Amino acid sequence: MGALNDGHFNGHLENNNGLILNLSSPNKEVKQDSVPISDIQNAVKILLQGLGEDSNRQGLIKTPLRVAKALCEGTRGYRQKVKDIVQGALFPEAGLDGGVGHAGGAGGLVVVRDLDLFSYCECCLLPFRVKCHVGYVPSGQRVVGLSKLSRVADVFAKRLQDPQRLADEICSALHNGIRPAGVGVVLQCWHIQLPVIEWNCSGQINHPTVVDMQGWSKISVCAGSGVFESENGDVWCDFRALLKLRGVKVDKVHIKSSSSQGWCPSRSLDVLAINGHENTQNPMNCKISSKAEPGVASMIAAVGAILHSLGEDPSRKELVGTPHRFVQWLMNFNSSNVEMNLNGFGLEGMSQIKCRSQRNEDREYANCKRDELRSELNFPFWSQCEHHLLPFHGAVHIGYFHNEGMKPIGRSILQSIVHFHGWKLQVQERLSRQIVETVSSVFGGDVMVVVEANHICMISRGIEKVGSSTATIATMGRFSSDSTAKEMFLQTVSESGDASGG
Amino acid sequence: MGALNDGHFNGHLENNNGLILNLSSPNKEVKQDSVPISDIQNAVKILLQGLGEDSNRQGLIKTPLRVAKALCEGTRGYRQKVKDIVQGALFPEAGLDGGVGHAGGAGGLVVVRDLDLFSYCECCLLPFRVKCHVGYVPSGQRVVGLSKLSRVADVFAKRLQDPQRLADEICSALHNGIRPAGVGVVLQCWHIQLPVIEWNCSGQINHPTVVDMQGWSKISVCAGSGVFESENGDVWCDFRALLKLRGVKVDKVHIKSSSSQGWCPSRSLDVLAINGHENTQNPMNCKISSKAEPGVASMIAAVGAILHSLGEDPSRKELVGTPHRFVQWLMNFNSSNVEMNLNGFGLEGMSQIKCRSQRNEDREYANCKRDELRSELNFPFWSQCEHHLLPFHGAVHIGYFHNEGMKPIGRSILQSIVHFHGWKLQVQERLSRQIVETVSSVFGGDVMVVVEANHICMISRGIEKVGSSTATIATMGRFSSDSTAKEMFLQTVSESGDASGG
Repeated sequence: MGALNDGHFNGHLENNNGLILNLSSPNKEVKQDSVPISDIQNAVKILLQGLGEDSNRQGLIKTPLRVAKALCEGTRGYRQKVKDIVQGALFPEAGLDGGVGHAGGAGGLVVVRDLDLFSYCECCLLPFRVKCHVGYVPSGQRVVGLSKLSRVADVFAKRLQDPQRLADEICSALHNGIRPAGVGVVLQCWHIQLPVIEWNCSGQINHPTVVDMQGWSKISVCAGSGVFESENGDVWCDFRALLKLRGVKVDKVHIKSSSSQGWCPSRSLDVLAINGHENTQNPMNCKISSKAEPGVASMIAAVGAILHSLGEDPSRKELVGTPHRFVQWLMNFNSSNVEMNLNGFGLEGMSQIKCRSQRNEDREYANCKRDELRSELNFPFWSQCEHHLLPFHGAVHIGYFHNEGMKPIGRSILQSIVHFHGWKLQVQERLSRQIVETVSSVFGGDVMVVVEANHICMISRGIEKVGSSTATIATMGRFSSDSTAKEMFLQTVSESGDASGG
Repeated sequence: MGALNDGHFNGHLENNNGLILNLSSPNKEVKQDSVPISDIQNAVKILLQGLGEDSNRQGLIKTPLRVAKALCEGTRGYRQKVKDIVQGALFPEAGLDGGVGHAGGAGGLVVVRDLDLFSYCECCLLPFRVKCHVGYVPSGQRVVGLSKLSRVADVFAKRLQDPQRLADEICSALHNGIRPAGVGVVLQCWHIQLPVIEWNCSGQINHPTVVDMQGWSKISVCAGSGVFESENGDVWCDFRALLKLRGVKVDKVHIKSSSSQGWCPSRSLDVLAINGHENTQNPMNCKISSKAEPGVASMIAAVGAILHSLGEDPSRKELVGTPHRFVQWLMNFNSSNVEMNLNGFGLEGMSQIKCRSQRNEDREYANCKRDELRSELNFPFWSQCEHHLLPFHGAVHIGYFHNEGMKPIGRSILQSIVHFHGWKLQVQERLSRQIVETVSSVFGGDVMVVVEANHICMISRGIEKVGSSTATIATMGRFSSDSTAKEMFLQTVSESGDASGG
């Protein structure tokens, strides 16, 4: 047994403690004591009240606790130390026995690809997905346990982040923890889109057109230290080649790139607000910009309090606008707003739209057979999980039979119904029921609804099931008793999924 | 606020405790106290000694602790209760307001697809991968938080399992926890292959041919309760259609299928051993079948002790042969065995094989240019992570230049070198170095090696990074200084990856 055993390396690390800690959290307060969960719970209750919700209603009673726990878990990186992870996981590996070359613990590139992580956007507090690729070139015969590359990356992902800073912090922490010849980090990041909705300032949905709801805002960022410091270094070629083997194409490496802050879709809302394009904004801009609205002001203060409770500095320049942006986003799901729309614009309003829309569709109608199964597929929807205050989104498929004398239902009406029920605090099961009931009550007849969704709470929190997706079925009338009808519709949905590569 | 709030449902659940616990672990001892980690550590030390390893050597010092912690974490399901998970996550959701139909909390199918899990095979103690799909039909206006379907499934995955029993237990536990109209479970399971190697009984590798090393043994199993109890029920059609939307095709549903025990590749080794086909067995069959080998007997006893420490009953009929099979597998990586082979068969032996093999390849050689880059790609390898005692496996790519007067190296020789260094307790960095050194020292010249691997410890333990993969590079001679040469070879490797769809 040589001198280079685990204990020996621990000793080395101990001497570097200060360096690791300084670099791993350059501008953050690292709190060791536990997070004040009850303060966060109280702040979440204020948010629920601001949304016009009864925080004692069924389904919401435990939401403040769930949100507080999840936020605490999702920002656990503030309370973790890289030293605790790397310590004891550095192994001595000899380099080559003579001869010119690079391998083992000296100069041979080591890469771990496709680490799935989640982080939280410091601009808007929504989670974003990260695929992390790490490469390093060992030096001094030290290699690190492969899983530690993932664990260290996760320490920095579990904070409020910006993609470029996340890459920089992972890179610095690994460089200081392993002391290799260099570290390279490539992150591919996906941020959910914030759909742009046309509302008017009296709080009614003019036309809830949603731009690319299924899409994601994407960015790739790189960071490098040591031999990876030069963007044109040979070692980046090697790293890129190994990534390409897994289908990851990084054409350009910009290590000293400009800030990636502009990537968050909430930033573009800032710009719109400044330019005064209120008609492409959500209705709450009116409320939010009004200083006379005490509810909104206290919601913004509550989000600031949450940031503070999590160990962040709400006055850090990147966080100054965050509470406002988060509340702006959250107010899309204001229940009183939805109710108002349903009252002034609801079933009666629906009928008016139906008449108006259907005049445009009379030509199509002329070609329709009666008592025919009609499938209207892939209506995008967007909703907010009432258990976790996180979005879930996806597609709604609607099937129905023409009753004798009935005209086909216009897609725009169906899309409106989907949005009406989506834009509030929801659960997917209830959303499915409300859509099937509304379609059936307005238009009568036999209706079937399939809702397919990705729940951000399923993929970003606790269980972190990145690939998972949910589906719910609701049926009325003939679809409930006639299994052939149901199968016919599901067959159509399946085939559409095949065609779209789903 | 109605009577059906969370607290009310908790009350319901409390009354069902006994039922849930009985069904969730029908034949297992559920231990609440902590697992005796030190007992497992001692047992792992015996395994390391039996493998001819010095458990105090660098890299192995903390292996017993790492293995003990990981086994404890990987079987945490024995110490979890479904009640603790489902409790507080049942939400009252109304069914349809009048009209005939199914939706919301009454009769509307709810499905969660593509939950990535890992479980442990009770036949051989190796992890197997699970893609879990769960559907249920709510009843009594109860729906469950979607993430709980994953958490409950994980309670049963984190035990020693057989795929069919895993499906049955998930199904029973959810049925009793949610009391729905029915639960359906579909599991797709992948077990790593145990490669069949040709050794002889004196412990030498005759020809290490490995059958489908990259392949996985696959099985799909189903379980159903209530409305899912009949394999031909309509609800299975709906479930299958929703799975098909995600590319999951379940053609047949066999709820009361015969046991899936035969799926574990270690079972086929049992059959071979019984039939006395020793020449397709690993060399340790000879040792293992010899009762005079005290080391092996104590290894088998040590694995039995581990099972007991984890809270299992080693005399349960499915576990009776498990310690023997696990030790049989582990002894593939016996270091003294590898050393013996290297001594009797090593560099000198290599030269003999080289001459013999190359006679067969003279025809090919006639077409070769000198000083040409040659790329020999995709040599399968199999190794055992010395930090976690879990396999890592993948492909090795070797590039070299002909020196003047040198004949091309036969693929079979390169494959032998890869196996020599693979079949022991290893780390990937060292494996890369040893392969590049051996190829270079036997054949001289300029050599480059790329090792691509999947580490079962990366995807089954702790961090559970299912999609991750690692790559290491080692270079000697010209490849270390000439970046063009290195890029040429990496280009070839990349293109081969493109061609094979990697």
